[in-house]
Amino acid sequence: MKIAVYPGSFDPVTLGHIDLIKRSHRLFDKLIVAVGNNMSKKYMFTQEQRINLIKANVQSMKNVQVVPDKGLTIKLTQHFDSHIIIRGLRNSRDLDYEQSIANINHHLDPDVETIFLLARPKYQAISSSILKETFHYGGNISAWVPKNVLKAMNRVQKNHEE
Amino acid sequence: MKIAVYPGSFDPVTLGHIDLIKRSHRLFDKLIVAVGNNMSKKYMFTQEQRINLIKANVQSMKNVQVVPDKGLTIKLTQHFDSHIIIRGLRNSRDLDYEQSIANINHHLDPDVETIFLLARPKYQAISSSILKETFHYGGNISAWVPKNVLKAMNRVQKNHEE
Amino acid sequence: MKIAVYPGSFDPVTLGHIDLIKRSHRLFDKLIVAVGNNMSKKYMFTQEQRINLIKANVQSMKNVQVVPDKGLTIKLTQHFDSHIIIRGLRNSRDLDYEQSIANINHHLDPDVETIFLLARPKYQAISSSILKETFHYGGNISAWVPKNVLKAMNRVQKNHEE
Amino acid sequence: MKIAVYPGSFDPVTLGHIDLIKRSHRLFDKLIVAVGNNMSKKYMFTQEQRINLIKANVQSMKNVQVVPDKGLTIKLTQHFDSHIIIRGLRNSRDLDYEQSIANINHHLDPDVETIFLLARPKYQAISSSILKETFHYGGNISAWVPKNVLKAMNRVQKNHEE
Amino acid sequence: MKIAVYPGSFDPVTLGHIDLIKRSHRLFDKLIVAVGNNMSKKYMFTQEQRINLIKANVQSMKNVQVVPDKGLTIKLTQHFDSHIIIRGLRNSRDLDYEQSIANINHHLDPDVETIFLLARPKYQAISSSILKETFHYGGNISAWVPKNVLKAMNRVQKNHEE
Amino acid sequence: MKIAVYPGSFDPVTLGHIDLIKRSHRLFDKLIVAVGNNMSKKYMFTQEQRINLIKANVQSMKNVQVVPDKGLTIKLTQHFDSHIIIRGLRNSRDLDYEQSIANINHHLDPDVETIFLLARPKYQAISSSILKETFHYGGNISAWVPKNVLKAMNRVQKNHEE
Repeated sequence: MKIAVYPGSFDPVTLGHIDLIKRSHRLFDKLIVAVGNNMSKKYMFTQEQRINLIKANVQSMKNVQVVPDKGLTIKLTQHFDSHIIIRGLRNSRDLDYEQSIANINHHLDPDVETIFLLARPKYQAISSSILKETFHYGGNISAWVPKNVLKAMNRVQKNHEE
Repeated sequence: MKIAVYPGSFDPVTLGHIDLIKRSHRLFDKLIVAVGNNMSKKYMFTQEQRINLIKANVQSMKNVQVVPDKGLTIKLTQHFDSHIIIRGLRNSRDLDYEQSIANINHHLDPDVETIFLLARPKYQAISSSILKETFHYGGNISAWVPKNVLKAMNRVQKNHEE
Repeated sequence: MKIAVYPGSFDPVTLGHIDLIKRSHRLFDKLIVAVGNNMSKKYMFTQEQRINLIKANVQSMKNVQVVPDKGLTIKLTQHFDSHIIIRGLRNSRDLDYEQSIANINHHLDPDVETIFLLARPKYQAISSSILKETFHYGGNISAWVPKNVLKAMNRVQKNHEE
Repeated sequence: MKIAVYPGSFDPVTLGHIDLIKRSHRLFDKLIVAVGNNMSKKYMFTQEQRINLIKANVQSMKNVQVVPDKGLTIKLTQHFDSHIIIRGLRNSRDLDYEQSIANINHHLDPDVETIFLLARPKYQAISSSILKETFHYGGNISAWVPKNVLKAMNRVQKNHEE
Repeated sequence: MKIAVYPGSFDPVTLGHIDLIKRSHRLFDKLIVAVGNNMSKKYMFTQEQRINLIKANVQSMKNVQVVPDKGLTIKLTQHFDSHIIIRGLRNSRDLDYEQSIANINHHLDPDVETIFLLARPKYQAISSSILKETFHYGGNISAWVPKNVLKAMNRVQKNHEE
Repeated sequence: MKIAVYPGSFDPVTLGHIDLIKRSHRLFDKLIVAVGNNMSKKYMFTQEQRINLIKANVQSMKNVQVVPDKGLTIKLTQHFDSHIIIRGLRNSRDLDYEQSIANINHHLDPDVETIFLLARPKYQAISSSILKETFHYGGNISAWVPKNVLKAMNRVQKNHEE
């Protein structure tokens, strides 16, 4: 059985991420979406919230599982007996960074391969952070995030304003 | 009447920015320089100071107006009945970022076009942030900033030291 | 009156080019599409054919004129009393090349400005040459070229096979 | 059964290609190495020779098959009932080109996904063409090509000199 | 006598840095490794600790001297009567940044030249910051840092946990 | 004695090349400018002419020698007992290519180091090939080539027209 792991922050999950999950889950028998939690980062949503926001969007894909990633991705990969990490690639800025991570991961466990899917053109421009900024200034981001994410973002903003 | 908007942080305005204003203002009937204020950023100068530092350098260009940008650039563009955003481009790192912003803006308002001017070679190396760092360590940056900006930077530094 | 020149080979014109013409012609009072003819290049279509293939697609844009470019673009710009060159930008590979051309043109005539529009995401992947190759091997390229171009390409191919 | 197709010119196959085949063939049930033949290119080896040079190096990988690619890769993919194209990625120059090809292929058949593996650092510097040039000038390229390829290259050169 | 200065943060020094020192120190009569201290940055090790961690690894190279850099690198260069700054280059992201710094330095002192060495492939993926992050999550980074650095990092982490 | 080799095609030498020679020749005791001759390339000037066009511009730099490069640069480097290759770098497109060449050269002779100087901003836009094209169409390139080169180019063109 071929199991792949798709790690990320997903703060919050975008339609670009969902598209990548849809495209990836057909390539392998099982796809683990691993939601990271980097202590030095400030998140808009807790790890649990981020996991739930993804889960609601992948229910129809039976071989997709969403889990918390508590430390090094390579350890999670080993835990799930997976040898495949999946990452999306948007542009050359991504590439330089991903080359570093993939090489370090390959060194930490030579049996793990990282494979890349290119973001579809319409999702190439977006990232969670650029959408959060656009949203913060009142821009309509409904074209790039699932409905439940938009609701959750509105809720967070309302709480801030109160 | 063709009106263009040139948005940015301008903290502080550099001779690279001024060069771009000079080159752009001839292309259109009116040029609005929109000075942003991102709450999550720490600025060296207040929005008002940044506006004034620019104004003093563009007085001779009668069709240039300097205004505060309070939120999404696309809203300011609409407010001024402009359909053109102007941005400078220095290198490929800029390009990846600008592609995101331009695509999101185009989506928010399909009637607004973003156009790019390449930084002239002698201004390709500089950015406000790299000049602030150079200045902080005592480097002579008079080749890249207007005189009033250099004075203002010296004043800020003096206040810090007292 | 602001006149802009959009130079290129257009061998053949793609929907990416047409999109750029549509977006540019609104920005200025007049847009000159200048079809080049580099003696060292081998074209699929003659300069005249390339001009006609474009003309048929821009008839509704009254301020667009399609002309042959016989030598240096900067001379054509001067001939039409234009001070603006427009170019499309798809990726960082384009950028390096365009920086060279824009700087040389600026040096040849400091009154001429080159401005760039980014290719829309769905046209970012295509170029005339990649479409010709795809077509040559029997790929369906109807999503990226105007109908009259597809017909003309089929005619050329038929002649080759006879 | 998951079948992947790895298309390329392989003129000649390098250790970088072999490394990619080794890493890919474990990810899927079957791997088809598709050797292209572009009429407008000049090859050092015939399509048949290039196929045989690869075959001799992949005998131990039982799920690898080497075949000629006669036209569009997407047709070959469909012929083998595969939905996965594999490509190697070395640097940002590669990325721009591969984005074009992957997007066009995805358009030609939305059921086909292109996935990328990054070249290992030690193979990042090499390509068939740069090795041919190095070889041509008498450089020792034995670190980057299989033994049978080196022999075949020596044979070709000898014939040229006679 | 040709003296070169190699400035950096070295927080901490990696085997990539050491490799660059080894390759550079043969090119010139003397090599000054200048350890910077940017007040706005948070370091894992003090400037003194960082200097000592380097010193222990370069003892056998008699023409290498490790010193603190207290402000602008260009002033340190002048202090040591050096006209050469050495920097490593890993990828295009580095290049854009280094072009800025090199141009500004050249402007501050036209007699100072910046020269670049490319990181060897196996060190191309790593940076001090990516190694600190990997280490923080329990990844084995012994392939990329000197032994004394690994020990020091373990000590820091132990102190944090207590 | 530190001897450096600066290899290239120099068809023809530009002021960008001359600038690089000026900056490099001070860094080392001797600088060998090695003029290559790739059989598969078509040159505007013969190898001998290209050597002479450079020589006339470097006479005042006593430690510069201009020689023909007949094969692999690494062999020439060894012949002159040099361990340093110098190359100019203009942009990220250059970088990808230069990384390949430098890595292959390092592999062919681990004692040879390649070092890079960045093109000064005003020469960043130009290359011999882009200048030849501009010249061919009647553009004034006197800002980027030495006087003797311009004369020689005019002579070549005159011969072509006769």
